[in-house]
Amino acid sequence: MPANTHAKAPLRLGIAGLGTVGMGVIKIVQEKADLLALRAGRPVEIVAVSARSKGKDRGYDISGYAWEDDPVKLAQRDDVDVFVELMGGSDGPAKAATQAALELGKDVVTANKALLAHHGQALAETAESHGAVLRFEAAVAGGIPVMKALTEGLAGNGITRVIGVMNGTCNYILTRMEATGQGYNALFDECARLGYLEADPQLDVGGIDAGHKLSLLASVAFGTKVNFDAVELEGIERITNQDIAHAADMGYKIKLLGVTQMTDRGLEQRMTPCLVPDTSPLGQLDGGTNMVVLEGDEVGQIVLRGAGAGMGPTASAVMSDIMDIARDIRLTTFGQPANTLIAATPVMDATPAPYYLRLELIDKPGVLAKVTSALGDAGVSIDRMRQYGQDDDADVAPVLIVTDPAPRAALDEAIEAMVGTDVLISPPVAIRIEKV
Amino acid sequence: MPANTHAKAPLRLGIAGLGTVGMGVIKIVQEKADLLALRAGRPVEIVAVSARSKGKDRGYDISGYAWEDDPVKLAQRDDVDVFVELMGGSDGPAKAATQAALELGKDVVTANKALLAHHGQALAETAESHGAVLRFEAAVAGGIPVMKALTEGLAGNGITRVIGVMNGTCNYILTRMEATGQGYNALFDECARLGYLEADPQLDVGGIDAGHKLSLLASVAFGTKVNFDAVELEGIERITNQDIAHAADMGYKIKLLGVTQMTDRGLEQRMTPCLVPDTSPLGQLDGGTNMVVLEGDEVGQIVLRGAGAGMGPTASAVMSDIMDIARDIRLTTFGQPANTLIAATPVMDATPAPYYLRLELIDKPGVLAKVTSALGDAGVSIDRMRQYGQDDDADVAPVLIVTDPAPRAALDEAIEAMVGTDVLISPPVAIRIEKV
Repeated sequence: MPANTHAKAPLRLGIAGLGTVGMGVIKIVQEKADLLALRAGRPVEIVAVSARSKGKDRGYDISGYAWEDDPVKLAQRDDVDVFVELMGGSDGPAKAATQAALELGKDVVTANKALLAHHGQALAETAESHGAVLRFEAAVAGGIPVMKALTEGLAGNGITRVIGVMNGTCNYILTRMEATGQGYNALFDECARLGYLEADPQLDVGGIDAGHKLSLLASVAFGTKVNFDAVELEGIERITNQDIAHAADMGYKIKLLGVTQMTDRGLEQRMTPCLVPDTSPLGQLDGGTNMVVLEGDEVGQIVLRGAGAGMGPTASAVMSDIMDIARDIRLTTFGQPANTLIAATPVMDATPAPYYLRLELIDKPGVLAKVTSALGDAGVSIDRMRQYGQDDDADVAPVLIVTDPAPRAALDEAIEAMVGTDVLISPPVAIRIEKV
Repeated sequence: MPANTHAKAPLRLGIAGLGTVGMGVIKIVQEKADLLALRAGRPVEIVAVSARSKGKDRGYDISGYAWEDDPVKLAQRDDVDVFVELMGGSDGPAKAATQAALELGKDVVTANKALLAHHGQALAETAESHGAVLRFEAAVAGGIPVMKALTEGLAGNGITRVIGVMNGTCNYILTRMEATGQGYNALFDECARLGYLEADPQLDVGGIDAGHKLSLLASVAFGTKVNFDAVELEGIERITNQDIAHAADMGYKIKLLGVTQMTDRGLEQRMTPCLVPDTSPLGQLDGGTNMVVLEGDEVGQIVLRGAGAGMGPTASAVMSDIMDIARDIRLTTFGQPANTLIAATPVMDATPAPYYLRLELIDKPGVLAKVTSALGDAGVSIDRMRQYGQDDDADVAPVLIVTDPAPRAALDEAIEAMVGTDVLISPPVAIRIEKV
């Protein structure tokens, strides 16, 4: 290696959290030391670590690193240039240690979406007022370098929309429901057995984890303060095999889809089940993979696909931020100074869309007329309708409707009117069809 | 806008080449001045331009910029911080002006793949020895931020392979051949009419343009000196509708596929027609869109998809490099110092692969035995074989074979043995099936 690549002082890391991701980072720093030094123009070293249990055998030798029981102490060490926060949790030690590092002007790299979704604005302001860098590539869509693509690659674009499938577990469940015909509950149990679920499963199946990611993307995309509380959240628990089969029949897949866009009325942030055409890249995304679609007014659609979780992919994203810092790339947390981010007005369902509507109607003459009148009276027109033959053992005649683009409010009005009649056997299921 | 975002001096651009891309950059700088300043922390301004024809109406007001007839003079202007080279051509003014800028320590942003494929090593060394930055995001895959993803996003990975569809015109022709049944020549003419072809069409359909891009990706991926001359090039001119239909029949699409990987024997760089599974992201890529798949030993597969050409997408990529410089991101051209790049041994067909083989056999007993013996004698085993019914008006019995993975040399030996018998009506067609 030429002498000049080592002319600069090593970048010294302190890593808090030695779970899968932490050990993935240690593995890379140990195994790829020469490659990293060559690329960064300086060595990248680990000087100290912290975790809950010191004694545990983790498969890689960490005896050469100083140990701190307290992550705050780790963050404040004089010999730590970059505090790498891989503990998780939106508050508690992760927040305290991150803040401690930033207040001393130390850079922080984190994979913690909950921390940033809840405290990103304050932490970014702390970082910037202390000349420190706070980066979080690994917090969004795992190994996909999506924050970099959005913040830097698309820096010359006005962003018009960001869409994505950002929870691998939900996508795995939905894909397997279609492939195997198993129900949601059986697949939830399978995921629990396979270790695919967070300790609190609602983080996955309730869309919370993916909602955290969406709120961070929205901030960078639109120059707004992170506002996770304004994300419209709906999980996948209510999706049935029947909906998946009917959607497939009409050329769609059901995905837990994150969508954020700036509208005339304010900022829309949704993480809800949606239908997407089965021929689209999002529709074709099977299993645990993530995909984010960035739409810019100059570049058009950029689709990014890759592993959303796992040791290697997440550690790869953490290393991307560390290598940026090693290369003296010093960017603001959200793509522009934190004190210039605006507080956008949150809006829900601001944009009209076509909807998929599944109705179970009693089987007698005239019921279809009542349904179509309810839609027509609310100004919702029908694009396609499909009536299925009645099951032998049930008085149910399922009817599927794909509407023309309509405001959600109009659809809700129509549904209310239908419920007011006596033709429905069960509450209607309405799922937005997102244009992708 | 807060005062601090304008605390730094403006970044002053000199743009040479006012074609589609140049005007796209001017449009962005004019229309998005505030957004760019907010994101970069300083204004981005154009101070001077150069092109062949001064008088031409270009749709945007360039009267406020100084004019230089000679791009070298533009590159050398005292008031130019970044020379933006959008003229094209591997030599001549583009090279002279780029070199002039770098020698004065001025940064250069270029969209010129031919220039870098032929002179990238020398220019990068000049840049780095003069403390200047030379960047080329727009040269590879248009609007897709692929150089950034590879150099920075995947900086913690050993890259194992890069694959991609990087010429939209070729992909358009192949897609339309399948969709419409029209032949290659008719679609070539259509592309010429639509303005989809370079002035020298061989740059597109001969794979040269895509080969330039591949050689740049290989350099960053593997830390090697750019070696375009070692790229194995084969265009799409010989692909027939019959091959496309047969491939589809067996679950494949034919793509002009770039593949580069480091093998035990050296660096493989191919830009040739290949079969890929029709269910893979590459197989599903229709029309003029580009896709690059980056494979890292930590992150796995990252798939990037977007527009490979056009005013907005290409200007977006140019702006990505400009904004990096405005943000004081100062990276080496190929991801590590140019004087540390190694000269890799070029190898062709280093890795075994399954092959698609189309044979036209005379229709008499025993011919199939001769073909299968030829394969067996060369050590090539057959995965699948399909014999088609004979056309009424021809003595041709087409036979399709998918082999098990085999070295290309073994396949060539088998083909030679077949040709030595009297069973073939036409030379066999052999196309590699790339694992994606």
